[in-house]
Amino acid sequence: MTDITALSINTIRTLAADVVRKANSGHPGAPMGCAPMAQVLFSKFITGNPSNPYWINRDRFILSNGHACVLQYIMLHLAGYDVTMDDLKQTPGHPEAHLTPGIEVTTGPLGQGFANSVGSAISGEHLAALFNKPGFDLFNNHTYVITGDGCLQEGVASEAASLAGHLQLGNLIVLYDDNHISIDGDTELSFTEDVLKRFEAYGWHTQEITDGDHDLNGITAAVENAKKVTDKPSIIKIRTTIGIGSKNQGTEKVHGSPLSAEDIANIKTKFGFDSDKHFYIPDEVREYWRSFGERGQKAENDWNNLLNSYKDKYPEEAADLIRRLSNKLPNNWAAALPRYTPSDPAVATRKLSETVLNKIADIVPELIGGSADLTGSNLTRWKTAVDFQHPSTNIGNYKGKYIRYGVREHAMAAVMNGIAAYGGLIPFGGTFLNFITYAWGAVRLSALTGFRVLYIMTHDSIGLGEDGPTHQPIETLAALRALPNILVLRPADGNETSGAYLAALNNHHRPSVLALTRQNLPQLHNSSVEKTLQGGYVLEEVDNADITLVGTGSEVSIAVDAAKLLKSEGIKPRVVSMPSFELFGEQSVEYRSSVFPDGIPVVSVEAMSTYGWDTYSHAHVGMRTFGTSGPYKEVYKKYGFTPENVAAKARETIAFYKGKSVPSVIFRP
Amino acid sequence: MTDITALSINTIRTLAADVVRKANSGHPGAPMGCAPMAQVLFSKFITGNPSNPYWINRDRFILSNGHACVLQYIMLHLAGYDVTMDDLKQTPGHPEAHLTPGIEVTTGPLGQGFANSVGSAISGEHLAALFNKPGFDLFNNHTYVITGDGCLQEGVASEAASLAGHLQLGNLIVLYDDNHISIDGDTELSFTEDVLKRFEAYGWHTQEITDGDHDLNGITAAVENAKKVTDKPSIIKIRTTIGIGSKNQGTEKVHGSPLSAEDIANIKTKFGFDSDKHFYIPDEVREYWRSFGERGQKAENDWNNLLNSYKDKYPEEAADLIRRLSNKLPNNWAAALPRYTPSDPAVATRKLSETVLNKIADIVPELIGGSADLTGSNLTRWKTAVDFQHPSTNIGNYKGKYIRYGVREHAMAAVMNGIAAYGGLIPFGGTFLNFITYAWGAVRLSALTGFRVLYIMTHDSIGLGEDGPTHQPIETLAALRALPNILVLRPADGNETSGAYLAALNNHHRPSVLALTRQNLPQLHNSSVEKTLQGGYVLEEVDNADITLVGTGSEVSIAVDAAKLLKSEGIKPRVVSMPSFELFGEQSVEYRSSVFPDGIPVVSVEAMSTYGWDTYSHAHVGMRTFGTSGPYKEVYKKYGFTPENVAAKARETIAFYKGKSVPSVIFRP
Ligand SMILES: [Ca+2]
Ligand SMILES: [Ca+2]
Repeated sequence: MTDITALSINTIRTLAADVVRKANSGHPGAPMGCAPMAQVLFSKFITGNPSNPYWINRDRFILSNGHACVLQYIMLHLAGYDVTMDDLKQTPGHPEAHLTPGIEVTTGPLGQGFANSVGSAISGEHLAALFNKPGFDLFNNHTYVITGDGCLQEGVASEAASLAGHLQLGNLIVLYDDNHISIDGDTELSFTEDVLKRFEAYGWHTQEITDGDHDLNGITAAVENAKKVTDKPSIIKIRTTIGIGSKNQGTEKVHGSPLSAEDIANIKTKFGFDSDKHFYIPDEVREYWRSFGERGQKAENDWNNLLNSYKDKYPEEAADLIRRLSNKLPNNWAAALPRYTPSDPAVATRKLSETVLNKIADIVPELIGGSADLTGSNLTRWKTAVDFQHPSTNIGNYKGKYIRYGVREHAMAAVMNGIAAYGGLIPFGGTFLNFITYAWGAVRLSALTGFRVLYIMTHDSIGLGEDGPTHQPIETLAALRALPNILVLRPADGNETSGAYLAALNNHHRPSVLALTRQNLPQLHNSSVEKTLQGGYVLEEVDNADITLVGTGSEVSIAVDAAKLLKSEGIKPRVVSMPSFELFGEQSVEYRSSVFPDGIPVVSVEAMSTYGWDTYSHAHVGMRTFGTSGPYKEVYKKYGFTPENVAAKARETIAFYKGKSVPSVIFRP
Repeated sequence: MTDITALSINTIRTLAADVVRKANSGHPGAPMGCAPMAQVLFSKFITGNPSNPYWINRDRFILSNGHACVLQYIMLHLAGYDVTMDDLKQTPGHPEAHLTPGIEVTTGPLGQGFANSVGSAISGEHLAALFNKPGFDLFNNHTYVITGDGCLQEGVASEAASLAGHLQLGNLIVLYDDNHISIDGDTELSFTEDVLKRFEAYGWHTQEITDGDHDLNGITAAVENAKKVTDKPSIIKIRTTIGIGSKNQGTEKVHGSPLSAEDIANIKTKFGFDSDKHFYIPDEVREYWRSFGERGQKAENDWNNLLNSYKDKYPEEAADLIRRLSNKLPNNWAAALPRYTPSDPAVATRKLSETVLNKIADIVPELIGGSADLTGSNLTRWKTAVDFQHPSTNIGNYKGKYIRYGVREHAMAAVMNGIAAYGGLIPFGGTFLNFITYAWGAVRLSALTGFRVLYIMTHDSIGLGEDGPTHQPIETLAALRALPNILVLRPADGNETSGAYLAALNNHHRPSVLALTRQNLPQLHNSSVEKTLQGGYVLEEVDNADITLVGTGSEVSIAVDAAKLLKSEGIKPRVVSMPSFELFGEQSVEYRSSVFPDGIPVVSVEAMSTYGWDTYSHAHVGMRTFGTSGPYKEVYKKYGFTPENVAAKARETIAFYKGKSVPSVIFRP
């Protein structure tokens, strides 16, 4: 270790102790223990441009053990990113991609960053396969990860690691901070597996550094070796001392709360620093890190020159790439969305979704996705699709865009977040709607970070029938609607399915969930691609209405049939289709009150928990229990999803409000 | 293979094909491929009593690949359980524990059964350590599992496998149906890891059978070997042919839909059966399986005799065991629940929960649980706790009841389901409330199956402060409230925390979630252990009230303070505490309308998504976005959780309804 390297590492360590103490909250131990590996990565391997943190061919750095975020903030500060010393003193408790420049993905919930990195590596390999040409290595970056024991215990990381090994992602390099400590204490309490052997089993290249506190040459050589292995992801297990320098080093005591002032003073003395100086960065360390920015700026300049020559030689590819990087969809892509009339046959919305994918997959080439081993059920594979697979397998190649996620819903969602974070691609993934909750940890981060990720969720209710209650979502839409910044779209027919894709692709800064049926649905009168974007709209209007029936997805046509029954009795029903609570809630109050006019009671019908429906309706036909196994029509009948029962509920509701004032569902305090 | 064995196996196979075809839905392939291993397990290893399926020392059999349930139904039918041939023809689409006798746990969502089996094995080891005495092997059963590729790809199974290896659960034996097929096709598409090497890395004993279609002696010997290894769980990889006999055998085509009539006829001919006979069980096969019930009945008789002698020699232990098996809590256990008065100090409900655990852990000895590596945060460890660890580790033993789950939330929940299914124990587990969604796949099955499982979820809102939005639940309570058959309890102080435990333990047939604060809360006037059981109750009443303020958990005291402010202005507020929507919803309409009297507008205050609160209130102070990092008081202020803002919302609401009729929140159509 050279003097300046040692000085830099100890600067990181003392700074970490100071920052956590100042915030009076946080995790000093891991940043101190990981300082050497971060030093190696940022000084010798990571290329990035602090002046343009989102330059597309940067190396990605992901701190999967997000609670160690002080380390990342410090490295960004030293490297010259727009993270000031004042920022350092009041940073978010976990790294948030949308808040801090240089943070690629939001981490903290354990295992997510690790799984995101697999998406990042997939993107790198795919874009390289697509755009690189002889002499034009436009994409040759690596994804570097630091991870702790916690992440490696999480199922989402296991799933992602197995997938990464299968896909042979040679551009992925993980440094595992093996400090033998988790929050409860020594890892011997609960985590005694042979981690490297497990990763070997996944098909990873593995290495070990026994003294990660001091052996910088060893770490450097290991990362160099890892880069040379281009057909396997790499993991390097690095034994470190958590909270090194503290009197409690190597124990869980230094993990999750600030060190004492006295302890910090002693640490500084031990590392040759002035114990009275706080937030101290020696000038020579500042100077030393200046080269990071210079190196990064030069790399981007060279890359821009390369791109300019590329434009001349490959104008079409260049135009496509530049369009993608500007985050613009192809002109007129939406014209490809199919439209339907009521005379078109009844079709399941999952099948209508497949039709949309077939129409747009080649027009919107940045779409990349697949299914968690339910391709034939989710209907997520378009006709011209090629598998994203390592070319040596002969079952696909890295230009392919159909990802075989395997039975790994949680990793699928986290990988999609990693793909969205990378740029230039729009990820989608499919499973049954009920199993989006298997992936919730990552779905939540799609929403929090504002990534355009498409969740294509089929078999969206008890209407899936025979598979029974283990597969029938009940609480799922309530959970999604309660989650901020995510669009939930449950289309009722072909036009609304096209509208759902239009909304999902046009919403650049939030994820979308498409809830799609297994069963066939008729094409509705007055349904509309464009009106879908308003979230809710009138399908059938009538003067002096007695009742409004509102439905979503597969229940809209039941509401339409219930309206027919009511009309035959002289009752005047209106019908509203409401594919998206979120989009509807964003409309003007004038619009919303035209959809739900005051004075007319509302009955909702949705084959899902009624929880939350009191917002837009006075009475509900919905689920209050789990479902059951059986043919879908029988199951629907059992739980009252029939025109007859909806009509009965409508009559009951009209009678209830006879002579009473009907509460407004729009005008509330 | 003897003639009768071959005949039995082919009976299972042809019956599986017939049953799936009759149901016109289901999965014939795996049952046909797994018939030999099921034959071996049920004829040679599994001891169970069809006349008393819940005899406590039975061997447990768990079909983790639940879609192959026809296999399980057929084995139960053959073995003499109360599953008739008519039942067989109309069984649920996945095995449901509460519906079919002999089904231990509800499976289908992949990976769950595997993880449940770890809970089952923990229970077996713990109860053996606790109750077995020299000469009295009351607990010596095994947990046998059949699992497919799908389950082994799921994160929940990986987490559970790592935990099982760590805990050295020698009573757990897993048969892995390695058929190289998943729904999308050959496993080479997405699942190419070395499974046995991975399990070795976890510390498992591994074996391999290369011809699982025919090598019954090999399977038998492998299970015998597995039983001999008592300090490691065992997995046996068994290569099989999915849908063996079908013209499409060995492909995904036989996985998820019925075989054609012609194909089935040919299969029958191939296996020497009459192709015109359906649902055919040869007499000699029926006769052969009779011994299963005889063997099981004898085993239970012997066990009952053993228990009788045990009663004489160990009356105290016997009484405890018999009480547990009768599913009765100890007399007067609830008297130990602490009670508080307003003069008691402010304490966080997570800390109050710790106090409850300290009071009851030794009185209710069937409580067994821990935390997903957040012990010091969740405060789930009571003073006299001993770790559940393999005795060789010297950090605990199998009598210990504190489970170090590691950072494995999903496995924790699934393991708890396995413990609850086993009997004689009440499992609990802790993590941050936000991370209950990491475990949702298993939480949902706790609810669907009706297991008494306690989720002790701390840091229950943005009130956790500095960790920021990645850790702050927003949608979580809405999701839980929308999930059927689960109690959600968010206590406001010490009395309500005791009340929450009272509700959770007394509700034998549903799980409970306790949402607990990180921050301190004052002890409230008029709070009550017993009233907590009503879900919502009046904390402050007033004649001719202008407004009702309703809160949950940490926001109740804010509502109380807001009421003070309003009173000082001459406004008359009522205050309601509502620890549980579910319990409140189960009260009489008279009671509910006394809590929310007509004509008085209601303002809710809960630091959580407002989604769903329109049911019980007209206006809300709640969350509509994600939270932020910061000290909790600042964060609370930022989002309006202050007495001042609640009072302002109350004034606004009163003004809004001036001269208008106030909608009833109780009387609805
Ligand atoms: Ca660690
Ligand atoms: Ca399989």
